Parts: sequence; structure tokens; C-alpha cells
Amino acid sequence: MTWLFFSSSLAARGEGTEEEEAYTHNNNSLCFGFKRFPGEMERGIDGWDLKAMDAEQLRENAHKMVDFIADYYQSIESFPVLSQVQPGYLRELVPDSAPHLPESLEQVLQDVKEKILPGVTHWQSPNYFAYYPSNSSIAGFMGEMLSAGLNIVGFSWITSPAATELEMIVMDWLGRLLNLPDDFLSKGQGGGVIQGTASEAILVVLLAARDKVQTKMGKRTLEKLVVYTSDQTHSALKKACQIAGIFPENFRVIETDASTNYALSPGMLEEAVSHDVSSGLVPFFFCATLGTTSSTAVDPLATLGEIAKKYELWFHIDAAYAGCACICPEYRPYLDGVEEADSFNMNAHKWFLTNFDCSALWVKDRNALIQSLSTNPEFLKNKASQANLVVDYKDWQIPLGRRFRSLKLWMVLRLYGVANLQQYFRNHIDLAKHFDGLVRGDSNFEVVTPRIFSLVCFRLAPQNSDEDLRNQLNRGLLDAVNSTGKIFISHTVLSGKYVLRFAVGAPLTEERHVSEAWEVIQLEASVILGKVSNTSRG
Amino acid sequence: MTWLFFSSSLAARGEGTEEEEAYTHNNNSLCFGFKRFPGEMERGIDGWDLKAMDAEQLRENAHKMVDFIADYYQSIESFPVLSQVQPGYLRELVPDSAPHLPESLEQVLQDVKEKILPGVTHWQSPNYFAYYPSNSSIAGFMGEMLSAGLNIVGFSWITSPAATELEMIVMDWLGRLLNLPDDFLSKGQGGGVIQGTASEAILVVLLAARDKVQTKMGKRTLEKLVVYTSDQTHSALKKACQIAGIFPENFRVIETDASTNYALSPGMLEEAVSHDVSSGLVPFFFCATLGTTSSTAVDPLATLGEIAKKYELWFHIDAAYAGCACICPEYRPYLDGVEEADSFNMNAHKWFLTNFDCSALWVKDRNALIQSLSTNPEFLKNKASQANLVVDYKDWQIPLGRRFRSLKLWMVLRLYGVANLQQYFRNHIDLAKHFDGLVRGDSNFEVVTPRIFSLVCFRLAPQNSDEDLRNQLNRGLLDAVNSTGKIFISHTVLSGKYVLRFAVGAPLTEERHVSEAWEVIQLEASVILGKVSNTSRG
Repeated sequence: MTWLFFSSSLAARGEGTEEEEAYTHNNNSLCFGFKRFPGEMERGIDGWDLKAMDAEQLRENAHKMVDFIADYYQSIESFPVLSQVQPGYLRELVPDSAPHLPESLEQVLQDVKEKILPGVTHWQSPNYFAYYPSNSSIAGFMGEMLSAGLNIVGFSWITSPAATELEMIVMDWLGRLLNLPDDFLSKGQGGGVIQGTASEAILVVLLAARDKVQTKMGKRTLEKLVVYTSDQTHSALKKACQIAGIFPENFRVIETDASTNYALSPGMLEEAVSHDVSSGLVPFFFCATLGTTSSTAVDPLATLGEIAKKYELWFHIDAAYAGCACICPEYRPYLDGVEEADSFNMNAHKWFLTNFDCSALWVKDRNALIQSLSTNPEFLKNKASQANLVVDYKDWQIPLGRRFRSLKLWMVLRLYGVANLQQYFRNHIDLAKHFDGLVRGDSNFEVVTPRIFSLVCFRLAPQNSDEDLRNQLNRGLLDAVNSTGKIFISHTVLSGKYVLRFAVGAPLTEERHVSEAWEVIQLEASVILGKVSNTSRG
Repeated sequence: MTWLFFSSSLAARGEGTEEEEAYTHNNNSLCFGFKRFPGEMERGIDGWDLKAMDAEQLRENAHKMVDFIADYYQSIESFPVLSQVQPGYLRELVPDSAPHLPESLEQVLQDVKEKILPGVTHWQSPNYFAYYPSNSSIAGFMGEMLSAGLNIVGFSWITSPAATELEMIVMDWLGRLLNLPDDFLSKGQGGGVIQGTASEAILVVLLAARDKVQTKMGKRTLEKLVVYTSDQTHSALKKACQIAGIFPENFRVIETDASTNYALSPGMLEEAVSHDVSSGLVPFFFCATLGTTSSTAVDPLATLGEIAKKYELWFHIDAAYAGCACICPEYRPYLDGVEEADSFNMNAHKWFLTNFDCSALWVKDRNALIQSLSTNPEFLKNKASQANLVVDYKDWQIPLGRRFRSLKLWMVLRLYGVANLQQYFRNHIDLAKHFDGLVRGDSNFEVVTPRIFSLVCFRLAPQNSDEDLRNQLNRGLLDAVNSTGKIFISHTVLSGKYVLRFAVGAPLTEERHVSEAWEVIQLEASVILGKVSNTSRG
């Protein structure tokens, strides 16, 4: 028996603590409580104990979990999309310590239903329109299952060659779908790697860029290194700079406004860079965004790339969300200019039907990453690595260990096929267009920036209201709408305007969900406007 | 229908690229190819297409995947433990690009069997004794399934309150099982957090320590900051120092040797620190290890902690592997001294039956982490966070996004219970004792350092052989043993000696596997010794 139970093995060792004796006395309650299926073999002398691992027990229990999860998706629309619990709710519902004796799967699943699900915000609900999507799909879920089932730790090639090689292959596949230049593919000096998140992707390329310039100019140049970005760039870059030790005063945030739809102005970038150069500073890193988090602004990559080249900046493109849509030929032009980039990132775990986490990063110079991030301790040395015959992805990322994440991306690409994936993005974009039309049809509302992909930035903006009132109205509207539990949307601020974000992208979302969401928003708006109007009359 | 297929929706839009037309022509081949079960409803006008998400399709396909994975565990002993493929093997077997049209699950699973599994190194095999274990368990696997099924992204409390709160609760549970001081628990100023890996755990506490001292002394002190460690400390610390920008010349690696069984000498630490202080440097961080990666050496935490306190160093304890066993009262004394630590880390994904990744980190001062790692962009602001009512784990880690990893740890603790978990560790330690005895019974071998937990460090050391020959023999033996595919072991180097590592810890490993592994090792050794003896005769 794999799992030597106490009652037999303790006797053999002839030692027993008080705790252990309590355990023996309660041995009967170890029974797992599952009913036997006809014809099943009896397992082990202790009856129905759950073993650490056992193929048939795994089969039996995992089938129950499949049904639990499928039932969840059957009923997903019955939950409030945004969890309505209060801070600290769960502490009241669960014990202070782990159980000494095993509990049954039934008990745990009952607790999931009664205690956990009320505290879940349902990212997979068709009525989820907040932030950006985080897709779960049938293919992605099965990829996660297989990865968890094999449970390998693929830090070096040798620890599971298939994990490294499949990742190289699917990253080449995805790179080709995005029509990335060949020098991002694995045949040359570059290549793709799956990171956990865009934050990690940005951090590793920032470190590579930092160390590349410091190798030339020395460690003491740190205080001179300057990073460029726009005020719409994701906070991940600021965090990466904090981690890398970039001096806060050298983090250049270039302002954007409505005149460019919040895209970064190349003129302003060049002005900032050349000013810094003449001040004796060392510009070294620039991050542009294709589809900003606030409003899906698209920075003009081609022009920006020329500036990056001229000043020898490491040019990173963050396309975490919108990069997904660029596998459609009609959206690929937004990516023009990627030829000049040193690194490019998109999150398959956002909109690309690949369960979280799966952030795809490509670099042109993989040695820059490896220079920054490799360590080579004796206990990990092996012939294939020492002979430089293989890729060891541990040297492309922050952690040592890594999951077999390429499986889920591979399964998404194969089980859906490129044509369906393209259609999937187009469908969501069409739904966002539909929502955009609904907003424009109501004179109390306005669309704040032109919709490009599947996000609509809009707000309640009744005539004769000033900006302060409008901000107040939209704060109230956000709260009111999300408190219904019927939909979940989020917000941002653009040029001082409090703006509501309606991001289409959950796999289950259909046109009716979008239409009904709009009805919820209109209804709550009318209540708020009614109150305002009553107040002004009173 | 959730997934609007091309043929209908394109016509409605009246636009179509060449690719799309090819797609329309091949529409019939979209059929998923599954046989219908009697009584099942027909789905959608296109027949059996796999939708992005659909509860019943998820159920049907995920049940197939459960059986695939359970069958894998049934046959796990039939695979070579260490994959025997050559670098680049997979590229020969798969197409250069992703398919335009969907493929069937059957096709994909067939490819997993024929193309992927030969390239897998089977960490879950009962004959896996390399590195340290990376446990998959029934409970851990089901936790992964549930986490992937809900697929929430729990960066802030509001994005799924249950994810944050369950994590706080189970980290308190685990902290109590380890008998950690109260100030590591969530009620005070400290708390626990699940990181992806020990590398990330070490990095975030190093950053917290760096920024704490730099807040006092200014950004320009970086070149004076000194980190202390032993030559047995995991390479993760060196990597974290590279990332944090610690000057390489200020990374103090204190040598260890057999006289302390490779534990760090407090006297040498104090000498190094006081020397640096008198040189005007700023000692600020010290990492001790409970169970080193090479040989499970245990640094004397209590004495080291006093030195850390005296010199005001941030004191981190890395107990990635051996910390798991410290939930057994008889192993807890190794952890004495943790009262003086600022942070403590153990990997539930190693030996604690929790599928990768789940690295448990506790800190006494959570604000130090938050000061280093928080960002607060507008698009993530919400009432609960702004009012400081909740924990937002995004500010305790490198990435923004995070999975619902506490589910699997919670399920492991509940479905097995503490008593079984303790017994699980004791059983593996007993098996390692058994192996230790077998090695000691063969005069051609020696145990190199005393076994403490479930790792045995040993080598082939025939009489009258010099150190060079012994190293050569053991290199050859490692290769020979792993090439059989019957077992997988790894190596390290201690004081110049090439040493073989036999780490017990896979959930399926029983006494017979250990005994058979020893037979494989003895057999290969006899072949090698036979050759040596022939050579010396010849």
C-alpha cells in the first residue's frame, strides 16, 4: 500500500505520540464515505481511505469533480457576478485549524458550494464585463488537467524534454499566427517563452535591458538609467522598475490626452529622450502598448520603433489584451512596427481561451535574457545543458520551477483551430460594437473614446451636468450596477473623467447578455438621475 | 449559440477574407468526431463542434481526460522514468504551424501518448528519486481542477474575496501546524501568502529588505548593501540578488564543509558581518536553510538568528523541502530559532501533496512587502481596497494576476488530515532510512553525509580508489543508472566529491521500489567496477 496507515506502521515502529493515539482510536472515521459502485474491488485493509495517489481513486474522485465543475457552468448565471460578501466573511464560516482526521470530498464540495462560491467573483459568467476577460475554455481547462495530472516541473530540458520542446513549438506557432518577424522565432537568436503574467514578461525584459547596458557601462550607472512610457502604460512597468531598482526620478511618464485617443506621441517621446541624453542620463528602455488597460489605446508602434532604434533603447511592446485579436488579418496592421521591437508580449490567458496563467513573450535576443537570469548550480547540471544542446527555460524567467503550460495553449490551438479563434475575437468585437451602438443611442450617455477592440469606454453624461457631477454620477452608477449582481463592470479615469469600462470577452457571452447588461445600466442610471432630479427640485 | 460560427455570422457581416472562405468550404470537417451517447441532445446546427465553453461539452470531454490521466497513473511504471529522447525530437513529429481547422480530442490524446509522453520525465513515478519530489496527489489534483474550473484572477480581494480569504486562512492553518510564532499569522502585522516558487518567495523578501534599508539610507547605498548566505544555499538567492541589483562583490558566500555536515557556522557568519561593518558596508540580509538542496543540511537557526538580530539583518529561512516534515513534532526542533526570523518559506508543492505550484511564505511585517511591491493604478481601485479593509495579495508578489491556489492546499489538508500527512512524511523518511541501510551494507559504497530527512547522499567509493577515480565512477554510475529508465536519481558535489542523491518522496513510492532501485544501482555499479577492474588488468 502506498500510504502506510498509522495503525499498522506505528505498531511496527513501536512509538506513538498522544496525537497519534487519538488517530488510532478514531480510525473508523477515516472512511471516505463514498458508496461503492457494483463490481468495484475493495481497496486496502482500511476500506475507503483516500490514498495520496491511486489511479482508481483518482478516477473516481476526479469524475465527481468534473461533474461539480460542469454543474457550476450550468448554473453560472444564477450567481451574483461580483461577489457581494463583506470583508472577513469566510473567517466566520470555517474552523481555526486544519482537521486532524480526513474529511470527505462530499463535505468539502458542500463547503465549496455554501462557503466559497458566495465569495467568488465569476470571471466566467457571460455577464462579466469588468477589467479584461480571463478566459476558461473546454480546451484550456483540459490542458490544465493534463498539466496538473503529469505534474512535472520543467525548469531544465532534461526534467521533461517535451515540456520545453512543445513550448518552443507552440510559441513559434503563435508567433507565426501573429506574423511576427522571423527573428522572434526559435530558429534564430530569439524565441518565445511562456511567462506567468505580463508583469513577469515586462520585468524579465527590463532586467535583460538593464544588465545589457550595465555590462557595457558598469554597475554604478544605475542612477543614470532612464525608462520611458506613457501615462496609459500598465502599472506592471512601474512595479518592474521598482524591482529592478530604477531610480523613481528616472521613470519618465509621458502624458497622453484625448487628441491622440490616449496613444503616446512620438514627438514627446523623442523630446524626452533627447533632453535626457543631453543631461548626461542614459535612456535604455521604452515600453509601448497595443491596447492599453484603461481604454485600448494603440501606440503608433512603427514611428515609436524608429525613435527606439535611433537612441538604442530596448523597445518592448505590451499587447497583453489586444495582441490576441492580431491573429485576425484585419487587426494585424495595429502590430506594424513590431519589426523594430526587442520584445513582444501578449496574454493567451486573457482573451485567447487559454486558462490563466499563460503569458506569451517573444524576444529577439534570448541571450540577453539568459545573461540576466541564469544560474547554474551543480545539482542542476546535466549533459544536455552543459553541451548547450537545449533550451533551459529556467534561465528565461524569474522562478526556477515551471508548469507544463504549453499543453493548454497547444490544445486550444488544435481543438479550436485558427479559423474559429479568429471568429471568436470577431464575435466579441461585434458584440462590443453592438454595445457601443446602444450607448450612442441614449442621449444621457456618451462613448468617451473610440472603440477599437472589444472594450467600450463610456459614461453617464446628462446635458447641463458639470464634470464633478458627472464623475459623481458615474461612481454611483458603477456601484449601483455592480451591487445588483446581474453584471460586473469596472472603471478608469481618462483626463480626469471617471469612465465606465464595458469589456466583452467571456466565452459564454452572447448578444442577449450584452443587451440585458445595457438594460441594467440604463435602469440604474434612471434611478440615479431621478434622485438627482428630485434633489435639484427639492 | 455562444460560439457564432463563421458560416452564418460572416454572411451577416458581408465581409470575408480568402482565409475565411477556405474555412467555409471546409466547414464539414469542423465536426468534433465524438460518437453520440444514447439520449444525448443534439447541439447546435453545426452538429458536434467544440464550443469555447459549454457545460455539457465540458463534462463530456473532461470525463475523457480524467480517464486518460487515471490510465496514465495505472501504467506509470511502464515508462522510462527519465525521458530517453534526444534534443529536438519533437520538432520532427509535429507540424510547423497551428491547424486552421479544429482537430479532435482523440487525435490530440493520441499525440500525447505517442509524441509527448516519450518526452516526459515522470516526476510522479514511484521510481523517481531525483532532485526533490514534486507531489501530485488526488486532493491536490482536484484542487487544481477546481481552481482551473473557476478560473478567477485573484489579484485584489474584490476580484474573488474567497480566494484571498481562503489563502489567509489556510496559511494560518499551515503556520499553526508548523508552530510558527503568532507574529507570522494574519491577525497581527504579519501573514502568509502563496507564491509560485521559493525563488519568488526569496526575491520578494529580499526586495522588501532592500527597500526598507534604502528608505532609511537612500537609493545610492545600493553598492554598500551586503547579503550573506552559505555555499549550500539554493541558487535562487543568487538569482534574486542579480535581479535586485545587489553588487556581485557584496554577495557573501560562506564556505561549509563536512565538519558541520555542510551547515553554516555562526562564527564565520559573524566574522564576515562584523568585518563588513568595519569596512563601512551595510549588511542587510541573511538567508539560512533548513534542508539544503544538495544534502538537506540544517543551518543552526537559533544561533544564526541571534547574529541576525544583533546586526539588524533581515533573516530569511528557506525550508522549501524539509519544512514540510516540520509538521511532525519530532522534526519541529529543527525549526527552533524561527522566532528570530523575518520570513520563512516552505514549498507545499514539493513533498506536501500539493500540486505544483504552491510555495508558502510567511512574513512578520507584511507592510515591508507591500511598501516594495504595491502599485495602485486607477483601473484597480475599489472601495474595499481604498478603505484598507482587505488584503490585496497583488502587493505581496511579483505578478499582478494570481490563481486560486489556496483551494488545493485546503483540499490536501482536509481530505488527508494532519495525522495522515504526518504519517506520509514519516513513511518516506523510513524508506530513506531503509535505503541508507542498504548502502551501508555494501562496502563498495559510502553514505557521504548523515541522512536527516528523506534524502540519502551516497557514492560508489571502492577501496584503493582515489578521489578523481571516484568522481569519474560516480559520473558514470549516474549516467548508467538513469539510462536504464528504471529509476531516476540526480547528483551534487560536496567538498569536491561527486555525490549521488537518492530523494524519496513520490506519493506512489513503496519499500519495494526502494529495494529495486538499490538493485539497479548495485547492478550498474558492478558493471562499471568490472570494466575498471578489466582496464586495470589490461
